[in-house]
Amino acid sequence: MDLREGTNDIESMEGLGMDVERNGSGFEDEKEAGMRQPLLLRKRTMNTTSQIAIVGANVCPIESLDYEIVENDLFKQDWRSRKKVQIFQYIVLKWTLALLIGLATGLVGFFNNLAVENIAGFKLLLTSDLMLKDRFFAAFLAYSGCNLVLAAAAAAICAYIAPAAAGSGIPEVKAYLNGIDAHSILAPSTLFVKIFGSVLGVSAGFVLGKEGPMVHTGACIANLLGQGGSRKYHLTWTWLRYFKNDRDRRDLITCGAAAGVAAAFRAPVGGVLFALEEAASWWRSALLWRTFFTTAVVAVVLRAFIEYCRSGKCGLFGEGGLIMFDLSSTITAYSTPDLVVILVLGVIGGVFGGLYNYLLDRILRTYSIINEKGAPFKILLTITISLLTSCCSYGLPWLARCTPCPADLQDQCPTIGRSGNFKNFQCPPGHYNDLASLFLNTNDDAIRNLFSGNTDNEFHMSTLFIFFTAIYFLGLVTYGVAVPSGLFIPVILAGASYGRIIGTLLGPISDLDTGLFALLGAASFLGGTMRMTVSVCVILLELTNDLLMLPLVMLVLLISKTVADSFNLGVYDQIVKMKGLPYMEAHAEPYMRHLVAGDVVSGPLITFAGVEKVGNIVHALRLTGHNGFPVIDEPPFSDAPELCGLVLRSHLLVLLKGKRFTKERVRTGVGELLQRFGAFDFAKPGSGKGMKFEDLDIQEEEMDMYLDLHPITNTSPYTVVETMSLAKAAVLFRQLGLRHLCVVPKTPGRPPIVGILTRHDFVPEHILGLFPHFNPHK
Amino acid sequence: MDLREGTNDIESMEGLGMDVERNGSGFEDEKEAGMRQPLLLRKRTMNTTSQIAIVGANVCPIESLDYEIVENDLFKQDWRSRKKVQIFQYIVLKWTLALLIGLATGLVGFFNNLAVENIAGFKLLLTSDLMLKDRFFAAFLAYSGCNLVLAAAAAAICAYIAPAAAGSGIPEVKAYLNGIDAHSILAPSTLFVKIFGSVLGVSAGFVLGKEGPMVHTGACIANLLGQGGSRKYHLTWTWLRYFKNDRDRRDLITCGAAAGVAAAFRAPVGGVLFALEEAASWWRSALLWRTFFTTAVVAVVLRAFIEYCRSGKCGLFGEGGLIMFDLSSTITAYSTPDLVVILVLGVIGGVFGGLYNYLLDRILRTYSIINEKGAPFKILLTITISLLTSCCSYGLPWLARCTPCPADLQDQCPTIGRSGNFKNFQCPPGHYNDLASLFLNTNDDAIRNLFSGNTDNEFHMSTLFIFFTAIYFLGLVTYGVAVPSGLFIPVILAGASYGRIIGTLLGPISDLDTGLFALLGAASFLGGTMRMTVSVCVILLELTNDLLMLPLVMLVLLISKTVADSFNLGVYDQIVKMKGLPYMEAHAEPYMRHLVAGDVVSGPLITFAGVEKVGNIVHALRLTGHNGFPVIDEPPFSDAPELCGLVLRSHLLVLLKGKRFTKERVRTGVGELLQRFGAFDFAKPGSGKGMKFEDLDIQEEEMDMYLDLHPITNTSPYTVVETMSLAKAAVLFRQLGLRHLCVVPKTPGRPPIVGILTRHDFVPEHILGLFPHFNPHK
Repeated sequence: MDLREGTNDIESMEGLGMDVERNGSGFEDEKEAGMRQPLLLRKRTMNTTSQIAIVGANVCPIESLDYEIVENDLFKQDWRSRKKVQIFQYIVLKWTLALLIGLATGLVGFFNNLAVENIAGFKLLLTSDLMLKDRFFAAFLAYSGCNLVLAAAAAAICAYIAPAAAGSGIPEVKAYLNGIDAHSILAPSTLFVKIFGSVLGVSAGFVLGKEGPMVHTGACIANLLGQGGSRKYHLTWTWLRYFKNDRDRRDLITCGAAAGVAAAFRAPVGGVLFALEEAASWWRSALLWRTFFTTAVVAVVLRAFIEYCRSGKCGLFGEGGLIMFDLSSTITAYSTPDLVVILVLGVIGGVFGGLYNYLLDRILRTYSIINEKGAPFKILLTITISLLTSCCSYGLPWLARCTPCPADLQDQCPTIGRSGNFKNFQCPPGHYNDLASLFLNTNDDAIRNLFSGNTDNEFHMSTLFIFFTAIYFLGLVTYGVAVPSGLFIPVILAGASYGRIIGTLLGPISDLDTGLFALLGAASFLGGTMRMTVSVCVILLELTNDLLMLPLVMLVLLISKTVADSFNLGVYDQIVKMKGLPYMEAHAEPYMRHLVAGDVVSGPLITFAGVEKVGNIVHALRLTGHNGFPVIDEPPFSDAPELCGLVLRSHLLVLLKGKRFTKERVRTGVGELLQRFGAFDFAKPGSGKGMKFEDLDIQEEEMDMYLDLHPITNTSPYTVVETMSLAKAAVLFRQLGLRHLCVVPKTPGRPPIVGILTRHDFVPEHILGLFPHFNPHK
Repeated sequence: MDLREGTNDIESMEGLGMDVERNGSGFEDEKEAGMRQPLLLRKRTMNTTSQIAIVGANVCPIESLDYEIVENDLFKQDWRSRKKVQIFQYIVLKWTLALLIGLATGLVGFFNNLAVENIAGFKLLLTSDLMLKDRFFAAFLAYSGCNLVLAAAAAAICAYIAPAAAGSGIPEVKAYLNGIDAHSILAPSTLFVKIFGSVLGVSAGFVLGKEGPMVHTGACIANLLGQGGSRKYHLTWTWLRYFKNDRDRRDLITCGAAAGVAAAFRAPVGGVLFALEEAASWWRSALLWRTFFTTAVVAVVLRAFIEYCRSGKCGLFGEGGLIMFDLSSTITAYSTPDLVVILVLGVIGGVFGGLYNYLLDRILRTYSIINEKGAPFKILLTITISLLTSCCSYGLPWLARCTPCPADLQDQCPTIGRSGNFKNFQCPPGHYNDLASLFLNTNDDAIRNLFSGNTDNEFHMSTLFIFFTAIYFLGLVTYGVAVPSGLFIPVILAGASYGRIIGTLLGPISDLDTGLFALLGAASFLGGTMRMTVSVCVILLELTNDLLMLPLVMLVLLISKTVADSFNLGVYDQIVKMKGLPYMEAHAEPYMRHLVAGDVVSGPLITFAGVEKVGNIVHALRLTGHNGFPVIDEPPFSDAPELCGLVLRSHLLVLLKGKRFTKERVRTGVGELLQRFGAFDFAKPGSGKGMKFEDLDIQEEEMDMYLDLHPITNTSPYTVVETMSLAKAAVLFRQLGLRHLCVVPKTPGRPPIVGILTRHDFVPEHILGLFPHFNPHK
């Protein structure tokens, strides 16, 4: 353990059983330290990033997911006996789950909006009532006090119940769909905190959105439904066993993420495209259809609730509840000068977007130092930001001039009630404060105000400038606090005000409406930070319900994405990287072409014989955290040592628990095994619910008995020859969604397996640690 | 050759060098027949479908595309020397090509519409002028005469210049993107015929669309631009060499297909989704972005042209040119009874859609017998269908009653000119013939009439019923004729009239507008035949410019697709199958789980030594059509025989042409080779442009010299062990887009390669021919 002294927190987690996934790495002796830190021994560099991740400012172990089709004798046997009724059950259940995910996510999405509108609405009404009575300081106290209490509550549940619920959640969902299971990221407690923390956080007036958290919420709901009730009700147990594998779970969670976007933006097509473009790493046509069904259900549910609320039964929940901005009144014919203006808008938007990502990364790294100190510090940070936000929201409008109400106006001016374009604030009757209309509103209403058409002179240049600066920086400092917080809304807000600024400045050149400029500005910022194109475009279209401006939005997005891509990564990719999640890109890195599979793998590794002594298995399971062990058939079971296949840790645990040991070294076969087990006993349980090594209770005398591993050995593992280019091995590994890739020797006469490649062996940090002379930027 | 007697046309093509892609199949002796028909010798069943396809009623050879990264010494050397400027060139060119594809497709799409509107408009004006003068028979003669001439011209260019241009082209593009290159499917002649044949065909009043052909046109344009001018201009040659591989070509053609949809429907997002859902087999995020850019360019180009034409400079091209149906006037609030009605609509639509596919398959099989007889028969068939269509279009409106014009109407009634809802036909002034409004219009205008809102009583029930029946069957009999013909428009037309029928019948239950019912009916038919969901949904939304009815359209699509899926395949999949294109599904068939890779492969196969005698190579190339040969290193170059890699036929031909032979059996290395060749000399040329065996000119004395194959051997071919489950091998093959998959022995002491799996070894017909006891439907 000497080597580990003086290392930081993250590295010192290493010794505590954090290396969930490694095999094929050198462990020269049987000492624990040596086995767990092979890279340390070899090159004195540690591959820490690949085994633990920062989730909600805490480090937690990472497990790889396994999308490979297991083909062992047991499952083949089971497949033969599978009846049509089972396949029918599977299909019915698949669609039922999609339906349930849609219903639940729609419900949660509506509840979220309803709660936010009522809580924030009450707060704003209280403030404006006090303002009307000229009790300005009391109004500030009420406003900031409400914000503070809500913020503290959000931070408290987040810090104490589920730290993983902090932040957007989109990076984690994206990583999960790439095959990285960071602990508790989809746990029920996370779901609970995500829902209520998001409501509290948004109501607290933070510059953050509920859209990112909705995506995470949808994914959590999908995960919960996919494994839900499996212990309690026999019915669900019987049926849901089909979904006890990572492949089906991945599909469900993809549906959930899409449903989340659909619920957040009321954009069913946008939800599907978001899941496709940003979230999912693997995709197939059948999934497109199922995802689409789920988002359609969400749309119907939301619509039904909104119809219900239209009669005023939902308190302060008005039409503003689910954001839907109407731009249809504006003209959308455009000419060449307009295109030039849009070009400028896109380029600057891209620069601002790239800068946003850069600053966010800096701030998140600073915050993580504070957040790591513990829950009280998290709450303190949140309170500080809340106070800052309150001061800005309430203080800055005092800088704005009072504007007389426009003469020919259908709306009320100044606005009575909570939302609306014309907040009275400190102004005399018949006047409005345009900055207060933006600050002292919910974020959704502020966006609606900025997007509204035919309002070219409604907002002053100075107002827009103050608002833009404030929102840009408040959005940055808010994201890292311990509250579920989405990035969409801050970026749209900043972008919309930026767009209006450009629209006002370049108004003489262009004929376009400034409301449209706000939309285009929002698009440019979204393109610059999130680097999504099609999905953002469709989401914006579904929000504004006007398809005619599609080409303009497309152009802006493409320009700003291109500009920002030359600076840095997209914000979600950046967060994935910062959190240390070993995300695998679809393409291999160029330097991998100069390496072969044998270069990054190192032997000897732990292998089992086809019929192995129980003691050896128990010993290997205890000493290592490896999740896959090669099984090698040796004489008398074969003529020469040959690779029989790969056996999974989880399957070994189930088999050991069953205790069908034999005294002699004989093959028992599948038939014997099936008397004790069904194939679904080996199905993979949900994360955290699997059998642990500690659950085993093997007697001393059983240690010398034998266990036939053949029935549970996956006899068709994917293999590569050791001289296979690492780039091509990486493509194979990634495309097929593997967890283990066996490396076999090229020349005969050696042991039949050289090592196992896992996700961690493809992580750039690991490879560049082994071969420091490869410069990834060359 | 005895076995081949008495076989039908398709099979007898087999002997004429049609087996483009086979290796790893038994050829026990050197006789040609034995080598080309291994399956025949083995089981007396032939895998004909996998090697030739019916393209435009002719059989043609199929070649597999190869998406594998070639990693031989030559390319590695080249990669090392590649400079940043080259990578920059590649990126610039990639985007330039995307831009050019967008521009060209937009231009062609506009030209297509312009030509159709003018030709068909002239025809319709002529007819209605004669009608107004009560010269009914002359009107019929003029109408059917115009149709006949246009149809005959379309059929003639199609039959004589490019038979591959017949039909929709979407199945062929889909197959190409799956890795199947049927000869001349993307050739310039096909492009030419596709554009002009489509214009003529649509103008001829056939019940067919220009949408499918536009997709094919887009793909052809992309293919042409990707390899264009490479011989003539030095500049293009230098730059376009980067695109001389199947992977980049595939990306370009995906962009092209998306651009085609975007141009046909003016639906940029729909185009991207279509390419994603229906056309492409492989997809990655970067491609999504590029495709989106291309469709955005198309949208901008189209918009610019339409703006230009708005001032009336484009002849008869009015607003109707590019279909865009405005439904925004209708109300879209819906209640539970509406949902019930929609359920019924969806179910019946699904049944009709499934029936459509079934009947289409029958009719296409019948037509292919006629079409195979030769070009004159193709033209004759087209003329017959044209006459039938003319008779229906002109004759059936006589059955309809004359309706008095509605009193409170903004439009003119009866319509003056060409389009419009109220055709006078034989009616007295002040009356209109509703059936003529549908039949004697372009298909686009007929759809617009059916979709138009607030016209509940405009069309009689009997009218709709006659129109629906006629269109349903005319659409079926038209598709197979030798004219570029899309399926979207006939299906939308039939669906829209069906929807109006249901809307009128169930009007008392539902409050929805019948125009909306027409849209939903069209959606249900599209879902029932094409089985696309998200893309059809988005295309319909972009056509109608109303997002509020999204959930309804989604629901209808999902219901009709589900219903129709229980009957048969989607129409494009069905045509792919009928044409004999060996399409690989993303998932493996269940029976493949019971087989291993070694079961479908059979040895011995032709292998080369690392340094091989020229005579042996020439002999192997002449005798076989194999495209990949394993290279085996033997002593003295290695200790024991070991698999060095795989060498491609095309690379061998280039190497032989270079004639750098040695007298002795020595390794020459890469350096020597690079003096003669650049890496791009080995790049894959466009289809049909590659070097042929006949181009070689090897002297007798050179036959005994040696050639070092190491520099061009792909040293990292993907391999599977012979005991690997066939299902998993198929997944590997499909996911990585391979052309050859090496099967290696499990036990040592045998030759280092057992055989090669190609696309054809995974074709169900082949496997079920070898193992007839597997029932694919079990």
